Amino acid sequence: MPMIPIGVSARHIHLSPTDLNILFGEGYELSVFKELSQPGQFAAQETVAIVGPKGQFEKVRILGPVRPQTQIEVSRTDAFSLGIHPPVRESGHIEGTPGLRVIGPKGEVPLEQGVIVAARHIHFHTTDAEQWGIQDKQLLRVHLRGERPLILEDVIARVSDQFALDMHIDTDEGNAAGVKTGEQAELLL
Amino acid sequence: MPMIPIGVSARHIHLSPTDLNILFGEGYELSVFKELSQPGQFAAQETVAIVGPKGQFEKVRILGPVRPQTQIEVSRTDAFSLGIHPPVRESGHIEGTPGLRVIGPKGEVPLEQGVIVAARHIHFHTTDAEQWGIQDKQLLRVHLRGERPLILEDVIARVSDQFALDMHIDTDEGNAAGVKTGEQAELLL
Repeated sequence: MPMIPIGVSARHIHLSPTDLNILFGEGYELSVFKELSQPGQFAAQETVAIVGPKGQFEKVRILGPVRPQTQIEVSRTDAFSLGIHPPVRESGHIEGTPGLRVIGPKGEVPLEQGVIVAARHIHFHTTDAEQWGIQDKQLLRVHLRGERPLILEDVIARVSDQFALDMHIDTDEGNAAGVKTGEQAELLL
Repeated sequence: MPMIPIGVSARHIHLSPTDLNILFGEGYELSVFKELSQPGQFAAQETVAIVGPKGQFEKVRILGPVRPQTQIEVSRTDAFSLGIHPPVRESGHIEGTPGLRVIGPKGEVPLEQGVIVAARHIHFHTTDAEQWGIQDKQLLRVHLRGERPLILEDVIARVSDQFALDMHIDTDEGNAAGVKTGEQAELLL
């Protein structure tokens, strides 16, 4: 069975150029803290606070580079703490989602929408997908052999020649199974 | 396939008589807030604070009645917030586990051990277990059909004529699948 590297995503935010300017000042550019698995993507040194009706989190990591729309990805556990009810969505599909107040060192943004629980997915490079007969958007099953083993269903395949092989799950999923970033999952074909 | 009622346990604490006296005063008795699924067990009206090296939680629910040993059950997500690394254990098996500071209205207890991540399990009444051919301590697979479907493996069967049929998972597991207390899970035999 193909083995897939696991990436467990903690809560994070992607910023639009406009919101980056409001939060950090006109013309601000993000600094790279750490390169991520997908080519060109990085965790920035900068963080923001996010504030919901019931709770808030300080030091939420910004992922770069900037994107057309600001998007916040939280776990379901985080969402209960914040007091919001975001849907499970694929990245970029934020219509009708709740917002949060975002606070940076130079300003704040009363985000009207953009908070999602990210749908788990696997990035396949085109050559990996061809080798294993996997189509873009196919739903897959993945075995996580952590301290509390489980099988994830409905893991979305995303195929592109811009992608590196990696499965993205959130902290609820990672903690439920007891797996960490850098460990391997077994794709059940 | 047999359907099993789901109970998602949030972080909670069971107290020894000695620790109850220290936290709430000599001779204190817990008040029932809500009966739980297992006969005689209840969520108390009383709560305590638990304090770890990195973080703390206020208003952690006490479950009654009192037990021989104080035990705190947290999710893995909670444990990271608290800054401790408890093992996944069955209830009552607390040897070698970390402690936490527990604070009540009348005193505090520097608990030396007793924090676990509870191993998921199903309570079967003896007649349910006989009907489905299930043995005490058997490891089972359970299908959770929430918004993010998954199959839990290594779910421990616990069989007794004192038990009511119910599966206990924690908030990481419930949130990873998108299921809530009172919903049903499918036992895969």
